[in-house]
Amino acid sequence: MNGAESLLKTAIASGVDICFANPGTTEMPFVAAFDSTPGLRAVLCLFEGVATGAADGYARMAGKPALTLLHLGPGLANGLANLHNARRAHTPIVNIIGDHTTWHLSADAPLASDIVSLASTVGWVRSNKSAEELPSDIAEAIRAAMTYPGQVATLIVPHDNQYNPCAGITPSVRPLTEPTVNEQAVLRAAALLRRERATALFLGDRALTERGLIAAARIAAVSGCKLVCETFSARQERGAGLARVERLPYFPEQAMSLLSQFRAMILAGAKAPVSFFGYPGIPSFLTSPYQSIESLASPAEDAAAALEALALSLGAPTAAGERLPLAPPPKPTGPLTAESFAAAIASVQPEGAIIMDEGNTSSAAYFQYSATAPRHSYLNLTGGAIGQGLPAATGAAIACPDRRVISIEADGSAMYTLQSLWTQAREGLNVTTVLCANHSYKILGVEMMRAGVKQPGAQAQSLIDLSNPKIDWVQMSKSVGVPAVRVETADLLVRELERALSSQGPRLIEVAL
Amino acid sequence: MNGAESLLKTAIASGVDICFANPGTTEMPFVAAFDSTPGLRAVLCLFEGVATGAADGYARMAGKPALTLLHLGPGLANGLANLHNARRAHTPIVNIIGDHTTWHLSADAPLASDIVSLASTVGWVRSNKSAEELPSDIAEAIRAAMTYPGQVATLIVPHDNQYNPCAGITPSVRPLTEPTVNEQAVLRAAALLRRERATALFLGDRALTERGLIAAARIAAVSGCKLVCETFSARQERGAGLARVERLPYFPEQAMSLLSQFRAMILAGAKAPVSFFGYPGIPSFLTSPYQSIESLASPAEDAAAALEALALSLGAPTAAGERLPLAPPPKPTGPLTAESFAAAIASVQPEGAIIMDEGNTSSAAYFQYSATAPRHSYLNLTGGAIGQGLPAATGAAIACPDRRVISIEADGSAMYTLQSLWTQAREGLNVTTVLCANHSYKILGVEMMRAGVKQPGAQAQSLIDLSNPKIDWVQMSKSVGVPAVRVETADLLVRELERALSSQGPRLIEVAL
Repeated sequence: MNGAESLLKTAIASGVDICFANPGTTEMPFVAAFDSTPGLRAVLCLFEGVATGAADGYARMAGKPALTLLHLGPGLANGLANLHNARRAHTPIVNIIGDHTTWHLSADAPLASDIVSLASTVGWVRSNKSAEELPSDIAEAIRAAMTYPGQVATLIVPHDNQYNPCAGITPSVRPLTEPTVNEQAVLRAAALLRRERATALFLGDRALTERGLIAAARIAAVSGCKLVCETFSARQERGAGLARVERLPYFPEQAMSLLSQFRAMILAGAKAPVSFFGYPGIPSFLTSPYQSIESLASPAEDAAAALEALALSLGAPTAAGERLPLAPPPKPTGPLTAESFAAAIASVQPEGAIIMDEGNTSSAAYFQYSATAPRHSYLNLTGGAIGQGLPAATGAAIACPDRRVISIEADGSAMYTLQSLWTQAREGLNVTTVLCANHSYKILGVEMMRAGVKQPGAQAQSLIDLSNPKIDWVQMSKSVGVPAVRVETADLLVRELERALSSQGPRLIEVAL
Repeated sequence: MNGAESLLKTAIASGVDICFANPGTTEMPFVAAFDSTPGLRAVLCLFEGVATGAADGYARMAGKPALTLLHLGPGLANGLANLHNARRAHTPIVNIIGDHTTWHLSADAPLASDIVSLASTVGWVRSNKSAEELPSDIAEAIRAAMTYPGQVATLIVPHDNQYNPCAGITPSVRPLTEPTVNEQAVLRAAALLRRERATALFLGDRALTERGLIAAARIAAVSGCKLVCETFSARQERGAGLARVERLPYFPEQAMSLLSQFRAMILAGAKAPVSFFGYPGIPSFLTSPYQSIESLASPAEDAAAALEALALSLGAPTAAGERLPLAPPPKPTGPLTAESFAAAIASVQPEGAIIMDEGNTSSAAYFQYSATAPRHSYLNLTGGAIGQGLPAATGAAIACPDRRVISIEADGSAMYTLQSLWTQAREGLNVTTVLCANHSYKILGVEMMRAGVKQPGAQAQSLIDLSNPKIDWVQMSKSVGVPAVRVETADLLVRELERALSSQGPRLIEVAL
C-alpha cells in the first residue's frame, strides 16, 4: 500500500465517499489509487472552481465532507472563490493538493508557488511531511473540517509521499468538538422575550434546519416574536409544514426598515446583521444602538438545540406555532416577468426539491412565492463570490440522487463556472437549470444608480452590458451535453419545467427576462 | 476629481492605456471614471482569469503593463492562476483590486477576505490608505511592475478612497532600475567559449528578442556553440532571418539527452534548466555536475545587451551567423496527424503572426515546422497553469491590432477560460483559434504510463477522459459569438486557416485529432 492508498482508505473509513477532482501529474498516485480503494467515487470536473463548488453543495446536503483533488497552487487558486463561499457557509470540505516531490521543491520548477498562503485564506491547512504520516494527516484534516460548525481544510501532499509505501490507515475520525448549548444564553433570551414582544429571532445556520425552525415557531407562538433569517443562509428548510420566516432584505435601507419595527433581537446561529457593502451615510451594522441584542447561539454553537431549550424554558407546547399550508401559487400564464418567473418555479417544484438560488436580481421574488410550496431545501450564495450556483447544484444532486435539484441561475454568474454543465451531463444528474438571461450585470446597473450615476457613459455602460454579443445559452448548454430550450412566456416556462422535472438527467431552460 | 479619476489619470500619464476589467460594486467609482478620463480603454472580461491572462498577453507584446480591475479577494483569486503564469514570464501587470470601504472592513461582511495574502503569492502588493495617496500608490505599482524584468503588482483600493476627493496626479513613472550588463560575466563567458566548443548557449527572456537572437547567432558562428532555448519561454521571435534555436524538450530524459552532448553551458536570460516535475530516479537539475556553467545574464539583467557584448568580446562580425531562409513547409494534404496539423499552421501563417501555443501534447511538432515560416512572435504557457492561451491571445490581439494572432489550443486547457471567446467576439479581434480536440487530458495518460500504470482502472481512466460527453466546440464557440467550423483533414484545415486569416474578427477551427 502506498501513501495515496492509505490516505484514501482512511477517508473511506471515516465515511467520506466522494472526491471532486481535477488532477494533474503531481496527483497521479491518487488517480491510480481510486481503483484500488473501492468506496470512494471520483467525479471529474473540468475546472477547479467546479470541484470546490460541488464539494460545497454536496456537503451542505450530505452533512459530511467531500474531498477535492487539485493540482498544485494554481489548481487551488482556481478553486478559491468557491472555497471562500464555503468558508462563509461553514461547509466541511477537505482539499487534497498535490505538490512537487519533496526533493524537487528547491528547483523552483514552473508550477511551484506558495500553496500554504493560498490555503490559509480559507481555513485549516497542513503540509504533509512523509508517506507514513498521510493517514494521520488526512484524519486530522477530516476532523478539522467536521469540527462544528464546519470549515475548509487543506492537506498539501508532495508527489513522492503519495507513491512511497505506507503500512496503515487511521480507523475512523470523530470531530474534535461537538456543538454546545449555552444555558446562560438561553435564560437571558427567555428573560428578554418575556419582557419584550417586539423582538426579532434572527436565524442562521442550524437554526434553519427543520428542528430549529419548529422550535423557533414554538417560541414565536408563545412570545410574539417574529422570525427573520439571514439574507444568504447556507441552507434552510422551507415550505409547507414549517413557519413563515421573513428574509432580511439585501439592500441595507430595506433591511434597516424591517429591523426598525423591533426593539430587540435574539441571534440564533447568526452573527448580528451587517450591510453587504459599505455605503456612504449608512452604518455597517444594521441594528441600532437602541435595540437590545442577545446571542442565544453563535454559529459555532448548536442553534437548533438552543432554540429547543429556549422553547422549553418559555413553556411553549410541542405542537405550538405556525405551520404553513401546502399552497403553491397557481401556474402563471402570459408574459415572463420577475413575478411570473418566480411563480412558475414555485408552482411546479416537487416535494423534496433542492433549490440552489444564484438568480441574483432575477430571482428576488422567488423566496416569497415558494413559502407555501412543498417542503424543500434552499441553498444560497453565501460569500458573494459568483459562480457558486452551477457547481453547488451539481454537488447537491450527487449528494441526493433521489431528489430533484433546481438551479436558479443568472447569465453573469453562470459564465463563471459553466463547465459544471459538462459534469452534470457526464454523471446524468437530475439538475434543472433555469437560466435568467437579462444580458447584463443588472445588479451593477442598480449600484450605479445608487451611487448617483444617472447616465453612465459609454465605457461604464460597456462594463455592465453583456448583450454584445448575446450569449446563446441553449447552444452553449447543448455543446457540453445538456439538452436545452429557450422560453419567452410564463406558460412555456411552466411546461418546460414540468417536462424537465419528469425527465432523467440534466436540462437547461433559458429564460428571456 | 476623485481618487479613482486621479489613479486612472496617473496611469494614463505613465503610458498605460488599457484595463481588462470584471468589476463589481466596490469598483463602481472606477467604472464611472473610465468615461471622465479619456485615454484608457476598458475591456470587459466575463471571468477574472480572462482579465489577468489578457493582461499577460497584452504586456508580452506591448512591452508595457495593462491594468486589471477585479472585485475584492474572490475576484483576485479567480485571476491568480494566470497571474502565476505572468509571474513566471516576468510580465508587468498592475492589478487594481477594489475592497470594502475602510470603515466597513471590521464588519466582516460576506465578501471580506485576506486579499494581501493572495496577492503576495504573485508579486508586489500595497494596500492604499487614502484617496490622496492613490496617485503615488499607482505610480509605485506601475514602477514596481516595470522594474526589470517585470513583475505582477497589486494595489488594493478601498471603495471610499475611490470616491473621495483627490486633487492631483503623479505626472509619469519610470522604472526604478534599468537592466544591466555584468562585464565580468561577459569576460568569463568569452573565456569559456574560447576553450570549449561543445557549449550550449541557453537562451531565455530578452535573449529571445530579435536583438538577442542576432547576437547569439554571431556568437555561435565564431565559437561553434549551439543555441538552445527554454522549453516554455514567455515570448520569442522566430522564423526566416533568424538563427535556428533548439528548444529544450519537455520530458527530462529527452532534455538530459540533448544536454549531454555539451561540456559547458552559458545561461543568457535563463535559469539553469530544471525538470518540470520531479520523477523518481531523475535529478531536478538537468545539467550534470561535470558540465561547466556560466551565467552571462540572469533574467533580471539585460540578456540581449549581454549577448551583444559577448559577440563583440569574441570579435564576431556584425553580419556573422546563421539566417534561416523563408521556407515554410508545403501545405499538407490527407489525414490530420500531429505532423500535418503542425505543418498546416506553419504553411499558412502570415508575416508578423503572433502564435500563442497552448496546444500541449497536440502541438509538439509545431516548433520544428515553423522554424522557417515568416517571422513571428511565439508565446508559451510559462507557469504550467493551463487556461492561459485563450486569454493571452485575446490580450495580444489588443496589443497588436495590425498583426494576426493564431491561438493553438487544446480542449482540456480551453475549457478553463473559454469565456475569452466572448471578449474576442465583442472586440472584433483578429484571433484564429485552432482547437485540438482529442477529448482527453492526454498528457495525463502519458504521465500515467511513465508512472508505470500500464492499465489504468475505470476510475483512473474516467479522470483522464473527456469524451463522455464530447464537447462540441463549434457549437460552444458560436454560442458566444465566434464563428466556428470543424475540420477532419489537413486539406480542410489549410483551407479554413486561410479563410480565417483573411477575414476580420475571431474564428475558431475545431481540429479532430
